[in-house]
Amino acid sequence: MKSIDFWFSIGSTYTYLSVCRIDAISKSENITINWKPFSVRKIMMEMDNIPFTPPSKKIKSDYMWRDIERRAQFYGLSPIIPAPYPLTQFDLANRIAILGMNEGWGIDYVKITYQRWFEEGREPATEPNLNEIMQEMKLNKDEILKKVEASEIESIYQKNTNTAFKLGVFGSPTFIYEGEVFWGDDRLEDCIKWMKLN
Amino acid sequence: MKSIDFWFSIGSTYTYLSVCRIDAISKSENITINWKPFSVRKIMMEMDNIPFTPPSKKIKSDYMWRDIERRAQFYGLSPIIPAPYPLTQFDLANRIAILGMNEGWGIDYVKITYQRWFEEGREPATEPNLNEIMQEMKLNKDEILKKVEASEIESIYQKNTNTAFKLGVFGSPTFIYEGEVFWGDDRLEDCIKWMKLN
Repeated sequence: MKSIDFWFSIGSTYTYLSVCRIDAISKSENITINWKPFSVRKIMMEMDNIPFTPPSKKIKSDYMWRDIERRAQFYGLSPIIPAPYPLTQFDLANRIAILGMNEGWGIDYVKITYQRWFEEGREPATEPNLNEIMQEMKLNKDEILKKVEASEIESIYQKNTNTAFKLGVFGSPTFIYEGEVFWGDDRLEDCIKWMKLN
Repeated sequence: MKSIDFWFSIGSTYTYLSVCRIDAISKSENITINWKPFSVRKIMMEMDNIPFTPPSKKIKSDYMWRDIERRAQFYGLSPIIPAPYPLTQFDLANRIAILGMNEGWGIDYVKITYQRWFEEGREPATEPNLNEIMQEMKLNKDEILKKVEASEIESIYQKNTNTAFKLGVFGSPTFIYEGEVFWGDDRLEDCIKWMKLN
């Protein structure tokens, strides 16, 4: 089975669209999706690329939310726009995803986290939202938070980020098929088209 | 017949894709397209949004060219990548387009200019390229350059740019249907979908 690497950071807004629809595409196209959390924030800082912040970039920010809202509607999703942004617990949210990918519950965690963030206005990796997610997933939050503090998780997170950067990733979501880089939820179809042609 | 405003600047790279395919879409979808040249550079400067320049943003720049190359291929186009960039005669190229839209040859001029730029590596509004374009179009270059110098053309150009900015345009190409703004060649289909739903 062919596979696509799905590089993402919880904290990226457009990634909501991909997280919500990539499973269905994986099934209908018969593709394996490798979910790979990394720190898009670290890469953006290294590239000296500060995300737009209101009010100087209000026009672009307003456009982004409207664009996400329309595209979500096309996909049959119903987000409450704008969602809380930017995140205060960006790294914690992604480190939990790293641990979850190792332990087999990562994909569900990312999906639930994004749904609550965009559809209920609940900010990722903050309380009581995190507690509720862990209860819903029947996971022991205290154990998980302890494991997430371990240097092993931080080192996987950093390694993922460095690998992403080396591969040419500079934003989330990014899809990579055999070294070919596709940036943005709107390029997922291009990535699949490319995969079929090559 | 429904109509979409197509805001563009000669000088924008992704606009190549739209210029080359929008006529076919206009026919197949039975939509009127209003071609509207403006200065995306002026808007970007006002927004303090400097386009990425190598080497600091080399990764994004390389990605842009690769992305355009792939999408062009999907559309059946064969550009030579990278095309000369950025343009040295950005404003002149767009002022000629303004005049051409007034006189009825503007759309052809924009299409020929983009084809030569992306498919033959000939930079817009520079010689001998401009001379050859004018000959190919059976236009009197000297007369046109004289008319382009007139304050009327500059004032339409500025007015277009101010109008674009007020409507929420911050990049080229932008498609607007009844006040709803869609930015990027990759949002043309969204714009049409939106138009049909509304």
